[in-house]
Amino acid sequence: MKKISILGATGSIGTQALAVIGNNPEHFELGSISIGTNIEALEKILESFRPKLVSVMKDTDRIELKSRYPDIDFTCGREGLMAVATDDADTLLTAVMGSVGLEPTLAAIDAGKDIALANKETLVAAGEIVMERARENGVSIIPVDSEHSAIFQCLRGEDLREMKRIILTASGGSFRDLSREELRDVTLERALDHPNWSMGRKITIDSATMMNKGLEVIEAKWLFDAEVDQISTILHRESTIHSMVEFVDNSIMAQMGTPDMKTAIQFAFSHPKRLPMDNPMDFDALSQLNFKPMDLERFRMLALAYDALRTGGTMPAVMNAANEYAVNRFLEGEISFLEIEEIVESRMDGHMAVQNPDLDTILYYDRLYKSDMR
Amino acid sequence: MKKISILGATGSIGTQALAVIGNNPEHFELGSISIGTNIEALEKILESFRPKLVSVMKDTDRIELKSRYPDIDFTCGREGLMAVATDDADTLLTAVMGSVGLEPTLAAIDAGKDIALANKETLVAAGEIVMERARENGVSIIPVDSEHSAIFQCLRGEDLREMKRIILTASGGSFRDLSREELRDVTLERALDHPNWSMGRKITIDSATMMNKGLEVIEAKWLFDAEVDQISTILHRESTIHSMVEFVDNSIMAQMGTPDMKTAIQFAFSHPKRLPMDNPMDFDALSQLNFKPMDLERFRMLALAYDALRTGGTMPAVMNAANEYAVNRFLEGEISFLEIEEIVESRMDGHMAVQNPDLDTILYYDRLYKSDMR
Repeated sequence: MKKISILGATGSIGTQALAVIGNNPEHFELGSISIGTNIEALEKILESFRPKLVSVMKDTDRIELKSRYPDIDFTCGREGLMAVATDDADTLLTAVMGSVGLEPTLAAIDAGKDIALANKETLVAAGEIVMERARENGVSIIPVDSEHSAIFQCLRGEDLREMKRIILTASGGSFRDLSREELRDVTLERALDHPNWSMGRKITIDSATMMNKGLEVIEAKWLFDAEVDQISTILHRESTIHSMVEFVDNSIMAQMGTPDMKTAIQFAFSHPKRLPMDNPMDFDALSQLNFKPMDLERFRMLALAYDALRTGGTMPAVMNAANEYAVNRFLEGEISFLEIEEIVESRMDGHMAVQNPDLDTILYYDRLYKSDMR
Repeated sequence: MKKISILGATGSIGTQALAVIGNNPEHFELGSISIGTNIEALEKILESFRPKLVSVMKDTDRIELKSRYPDIDFTCGREGLMAVATDDADTLLTAVMGSVGLEPTLAAIDAGKDIALANKETLVAAGEIVMERARENGVSIIPVDSEHSAIFQCLRGEDLREMKRIILTASGGSFRDLSREELRDVTLERALDHPNWSMGRKITIDSATMMNKGLEVIEAKWLFDAEVDQISTILHRESTIHSMVEFVDNSIMAQMGTPDMKTAIQFAFSHPKRLPMDNPMDFDALSQLNFKPMDLERFRMLALAYDALRTGGTMPAVMNAANEYAVNRFLEGEISFLEIEEIVESRMDGHMAVQNPDLDTILYYDRLYKSDMR
């Protein structure tokens, strides 16, 4: 029996993770959870689960909830996230959005918990520190992203030194068939309509800008100890092959399946075992898989991510923070789609990377480049 | 340094295996070899390699060769095959064609050698006996077939009990786009023109009849301890995905690459390591992979193979022997393409399977059903 706590329980990944736990009561039990401000969704969770501790964003929500659920512990804010991250669970699922996941993830690692990592910004901002800390504490970081879960599975039983290349597949997101010219007038609504995956709002926009693939490139570097030049991307519109690894003998291992995040979530929980699951791929319906080389002119954000990774130091954290800022403004209807990348690029241009930054330096730049900077 | 002996050194697999050994002198050395009657090809081999022992089919060839290469040991016939199989090598590559590979393979297993298995008829005829003997002697059977090498790689680091299904991909062979009606008049020459793979004559015909996939289904049963219903096939004309394994959690692992037998051969030799190789897959050229459900009415031979496997006992050996007989007659120009399956089916119909046969029983029926039976 594995006890699992969740940061971000009402989000897309959090909700599916609760379904996985609920479907496997003989294998998993819920520890503590954090949520933001979606109290309605929390109440739904409390109909089926009895978490030990619940962290909410606002103290007013905490007080209100405590009065209605006297037998559950409630906490709030940053302190609440840290409490959930370090409770008595075996595994922490980090499914919060953005770099806010960084500090609780490090706290959970220090507390010896395995990490089911759905928060890619953590590794983008501070990959070197996080992976080093995981090694020191002997904890596993199991990716929940379908791409990295695929790579993780392709590398099972393999020698990392025999890995030649990681090939991340990219669906291309909502606007994959549009030219840069056509991107000028796209709406928020269209950007949120992802062709294959049902995901949260931020990641759906990141998919449309291709920044999501850029974040994944950086995440892959840290998770799999790869050099920049060992990480490539390919457009694959069906999202059937979730990613691939090419080995020195030219053998390519690929992991495939229906685009259902629950597979990767469950595997991150059950690892090293695999547990039965419904919703298998329909092989009779499998007729064609399409691939296209990635165009870094068209998908400018991916080129920026490679630049950030090559520059290193604080640059990936700055890129990520600038992107969080810009995507938020786009989600608020304040800027156009192409302005997202203009903001990211100009903030990166204005930053002189600090090499080998400590955590405080990273957090400083994260806050700075996520702000209005006026 | 691994010493490798080869049964069938002048065939398609044997020749490519010698290239793999020659390309990796720091990892592999040649032990002994057997050939049939292709003395010219043997002489080419002797320009580059100095095998300890060479077995030929005919005693006259042996005498002639001995006089010309006094510093090499020569032997011949069945006894010669057994001597090569049991010399001082670490691994025996069984790349002879047909059930003649069975007895030397068993002898090599008894002598504690790992088997790089390119002779699928061995497992088809006597899979239970061979695998049992391998377990007893603690030797590994590493498949050289690209499909089974793919499955073997998909299962690395996995728990066999978590395997749900094996999915063998089939290119469809030379006649994949022809209807049964159109098969009536096809020529030997067209049958030998395989669209993707450069292979020996018998296996190329077996690909065209789809018996090759049938033999592979039976081989997969024994290699991977699978139930009949766990083995499925799918048409995949590009032969880029060499085969797949679906696990209980619906995750599908696939192994891909250029259709080059040398990858599987080298991996069978280098296992558990992977060694660098040239000829990587060109991802820029990867644009489309196509799949189609297998039609067992159209590919009648595959249905016969499933029948044979379900019947069990001596039936797979009989099917295999009847197929060897029929393919030989087709290669000799004595029967038409569709008569191959007529012969196999009628010989299977006429056979009452013996359950749990010992080796002598299998060899008896093998000889009987490979003969003219007049």
